[in-house]
Amino acid sequence: MNSNTSTLASADADRISPADIQAGHTAYELDRKHVFHSWSAQEQLQPMNVIDAEGSWIWDGEGRRLLDFTSQLIFTNAGHKHPKIIEAIKQQAEKLCTVAPQHVNDARSEAARLITELLPEDINHVFFTNGGADANEHAVRMARLHTGRRKVLSAYRSYHGGTHLAVNLTGDPRRVPNDDDAGVVRFLPPFTYRSHFRPDSAAQWTPEQETERALAHLRDTLVLEGPSQVAALILEAIPGTAGIYLPPAGYMEGARALCDEFGVVMILDEVMAGFGRSGKWFAHEHFAIEPDIVTFAKGVNSGYVPMGGVAMDDAIYASFAQRMYPGGLTYSGHPLAMAAAVAAINAMRDEAMVENAARLGAEVIGPRLEDMKNNHPAVGDVRGTGAFWAIELVRDKATREPLAPYGQTPAVMADLVAACKAKGVVPFINMNRIHICPPLNTADDDVRFGLDVIDEVLALADEVISVQQ
Amino acid sequence: MNSNTSTLASADADRISPADIQAGHTAYELDRKHVFHSWSAQEQLQPMNVIDAEGSWIWDGEGRRLLDFTSQLIFTNAGHKHPKIIEAIKQQAEKLCTVAPQHVNDARSEAARLITELLPEDINHVFFTNGGADANEHAVRMARLHTGRRKVLSAYRSYHGGTHLAVNLTGDPRRVPNDDDAGVVRFLPPFTYRSHFRPDSAAQWTPEQETERALAHLRDTLVLEGPSQVAALILEAIPGTAGIYLPPAGYMEGARALCDEFGVVMILDEVMAGFGRSGKWFAHEHFAIEPDIVTFAKGVNSGYVPMGGVAMDDAIYASFAQRMYPGGLTYSGHPLAMAAAVAAINAMRDEAMVENAARLGAEVIGPRLEDMKNNHPAVGDVRGTGAFWAIELVRDKATREPLAPYGQTPAVMADLVAACKAKGVVPFINMNRIHICPPLNTADDDVRFGLDVIDEVLALADEVISVQQ
Repeated sequence: MNSNTSTLASADADRISPADIQAGHTAYELDRKHVFHSWSAQEQLQPMNVIDAEGSWIWDGEGRRLLDFTSQLIFTNAGHKHPKIIEAIKQQAEKLCTVAPQHVNDARSEAARLITELLPEDINHVFFTNGGADANEHAVRMARLHTGRRKVLSAYRSYHGGTHLAVNLTGDPRRVPNDDDAGVVRFLPPFTYRSHFRPDSAAQWTPEQETERALAHLRDTLVLEGPSQVAALILEAIPGTAGIYLPPAGYMEGARALCDEFGVVMILDEVMAGFGRSGKWFAHEHFAIEPDIVTFAKGVNSGYVPMGGVAMDDAIYASFAQRMYPGGLTYSGHPLAMAAAVAAINAMRDEAMVENAARLGAEVIGPRLEDMKNNHPAVGDVRGTGAFWAIELVRDKATREPLAPYGQTPAVMADLVAACKAKGVVPFINMNRIHICPPLNTADDDVRFGLDVIDEVLALADEVISVQQ
Repeated sequence: MNSNTSTLASADADRISPADIQAGHTAYELDRKHVFHSWSAQEQLQPMNVIDAEGSWIWDGEGRRLLDFTSQLIFTNAGHKHPKIIEAIKQQAEKLCTVAPQHVNDARSEAARLITELLPEDINHVFFTNGGADANEHAVRMARLHTGRRKVLSAYRSYHGGTHLAVNLTGDPRRVPNDDDAGVVRFLPPFTYRSHFRPDSAAQWTPEQETERALAHLRDTLVLEGPSQVAALILEAIPGTAGIYLPPAGYMEGARALCDEFGVVMILDEVMAGFGRSGKWFAHEHFAIEPDIVTFAKGVNSGYVPMGGVAMDDAIYASFAQRMYPGGLTYSGHPLAMAAAVAAINAMRDEAMVENAARLGAEVIGPRLEDMKNNHPAVGDVRGTGAFWAIELVRDKATREPLAPYGQTPAVMADLVAACKAKGVVPFINMNRIHICPPLNTADDDVRFGLDVIDEVLALADEVISVQQ
C-alpha cells in the first residue's frame, strides 16, 4: 500500500443517508442517557459521533468525512474496514465464534505461532489477555513469581493501562487518584528535550549525556531500593501517550544490562508502539536488546476484536512449566480475536504496512514536521518514527516552557481540535502536544492533506504566544 | 426454545472431515508449543481440542460429539452458533467493526439501553469493560471514590476475576499466591450445607439460623473494621465457581440493610449468575433487594465477543457527573461486542431462554438431582436454580466430609470426567463438585441425556467410598 493517492478514490456524497444521520442522533441521545465514558466527567462530555469509517477516514454524526490522525486510540494500524480482517472475522464467526480458554483452538494456535515468529528467538509462548492493561498486570505477576520479588520499577510519565495494578504501574497524572500501595517504585526516564537531569544548558544538552545520567539514576534507584527486592523493570518500548520520545541511543541497552546484572525481568510494553506503529514490527527492534517479556494489544489486530497478550521468553515460561500460573481469564485466546490477529498480521506483511509506516515517517511526516518546527514559534519540538509522531507546543522556544504546566491542557487545544475538524482532520491531543498517528497504510496524499491542516491550525497556537508576549 | 427434542435432529456423520481432524492435530501441536494457558502448570496440561460446536454440543479433536454441560466456562448461555448473534456480528463487522471508546457508537448506545432496561429503575448507566475481572475492578474504584473510603468486604470462597485487584477480591484458593495488600477484608458467607457458623448439629441446622448468624458475623466484621473505612461490600449474587450455594432467605436483604445503615456501596457480581443463568435475568431478582452496582460479562453476549460491564445507580453516576472518573480502557463499548450483546439479549427475550432455564431447573434438573442424592452414597448435596446446579461429593453423608479437603480435587474427579466424555458429556468440575450448567436453551431431551450420564458415572464416586469403608 505505498500508494500516493487517497484510498478513497471517488466522492462519497451518497455514502451517508439522512436516515443514517437520524440514527446517529438517536445513538447520541442514548449515549448521553446510558453510557458511562472512560477518563471523563460524564456531564462535561460532548462526545464525537462516529457513524461510519473506512481506511484512514471516519464520518461524524452529521455525515462529514474526516481524516483520522488518531487511529482511533492509536490502534487501527491497518485502517478501518480492512477487507481481509473483516472477512476473517465473518468466517470465524461462522466457524466457531467462541470457546473456553482451557480448550485448544486453531485460530489461537496460529496467532501464537505468528506472533512469536515476529519476536526474538527465545520468546516462544503467548498468554492472551483482553487488552493491554491486563497484559501488563499478568506480565508483572509472572515476573514476581519468577523472581520471588515484589517491587517493580516503572517510569514517571508512562502509561500502562487502566486496571488497578496497571494504573499503579502508570506514571502519568491519571494514576494519582488511584495511587495505592502496589509495590511500584517510579524513576525518571530519559527525555532529552525535557531532561529531568538538570542540564546547565538545555540547548547544549546531548543525547549521550542524557543516556549517561538517566542510566546512573536508574542504577541508583535500583541499588537503593535493593535489587534483591526488584522483580521487574517495565518500560514502554517508546513512551506513547507521554509524548512519543524515543529513548536516546544506548539507554535501552544500558537498562537491559542493569536487568541482567541484578536478575531483574525486563518487561517492554509494546501495546501502543508495537505491530508496526514505529516503522518496525516491534519498537524494541530500534535498540540492540531482547526483552524478557513483551506485552501487546491494539495494533495486533487493529482493535477489530478486543485482545492483548503477554509474550514471554523460555526462562519465564519454564517457571510455570511444572508450577501453576495463578492467573487466567474467560476470554483468553478468544477465537474471533485470534482470527482477526492472524488476518491483520498477514495483511500487514502482504501489504508491507510496516515498511510503509517507516517510509511515511522518514519521507513524509518527519521532514514536514521539521518544517513546522522551523516556521511556527509555538512548536518547540517535533519527534517520532514511523507513523508515531508528536508536536510539542511551547510558550518560548528558548526556555522550552510548555504551553501549559505538566498535567494541564492548554486552553487553545480545544480551538486547535475544532479548527482541525472543521478542515477535515481529527488530531490526537495530550496536554501540550499534538500526536500524528495515522493508520500505517494511509496514502501519502492523505497524510499530506492532514499535515497541511495541522500546519494551518498551528497559527492558533502561535497567536496565543504573540498575544502574551 | 421449549423444545423437548434435541436441537441436533439428524446424525452428524459428515460434519467433521478427516481434514478437519488433521487441522485439529496441527492446532494441538502449535498450542503446546506456543500457547500459555490460564491457571495451569503448562507442561502438565492435556487440553481438550474443540474443533466445532453448535447449540449445546461440541466436537472434540477426534470429531466426537459431546454435550456441553459447562457452557464452556459458564458463558454460552444462548448456546454455540446462535444464528441471530452470528448474523449481528457479521453485519456489525461490515458496518463498523471498531471505534475508540470516547466516540459515540449506535450499537453501544443500544446495548446500554437494553441492559439498563433489565435492571432496577435507578440503575441507568453502564461502563463497558473487556470482561468480568475489570468490571469488578472498576466497580470497586467507583465505590472507593464515591465514598472516599478504601476497604472492601468480600466473601471467602468467592471468585471475582484474575487481574490483580480482582483476584485479591477473590476468596478462593486462587488468590493465595496473589495475596497482596489491596484493602480487601474477607468475611464468611452463609452456606447452609457447610456452615461456617459451627452448628451443634449440621443435620438440624436451619437456613433461618444460618442467615441470622451470617448476618451477625457480617455486622461484626463491618463494625470492627470501622464502617467509616469501608467503601463496598462485594458479593456474587449467587456464588458460582465456589459451589452454586444460594444465600438462605433473608441474607441478601440483611446485607443490603447493613450497607444502607453504614453508607457502604453494595456491589453484586453477576458475571456468572446474570443474564438468565439462574432462571431470572439477574440473580439478585431472587431477593428483595436492589444493588448499587451490578457487574456482568459472560452471558451478556454468550461470550461471542469479549466484553463486560459495570451498571451503576444514579447516586454512583452523580459522583462522576462533574468529576473525572479516573479509569478507562481502549475497548470500552467495542461495537462488535455491543452488537453481539444486543442480538443475544433480544434472542434470549424472543426465544424465552430465561423462562426456559427456570423451567429446566424446576422440572428437569432439580428433581433428577434430588433422585441422585437419594440414590448415590457419594452425593452429599445437590443445589441450584435455573441452569445453574452443583452436585457435592462426600465421603460420608452424615458428617458431610467432602471427598477431598477444601482446595483439593479428589483423584476420582479425573476418572469421572473421562467417563463422562466417553459417554458423550463434558462436565464442569471444581474441587469435590460437579456443576451442571448447560446453555439455557438446551433441549429437555439433551439435558436428560446428560443427566443420565452423570447419574451413571457417579457410581465411580460411590465406589471410592465403599472401598474406603
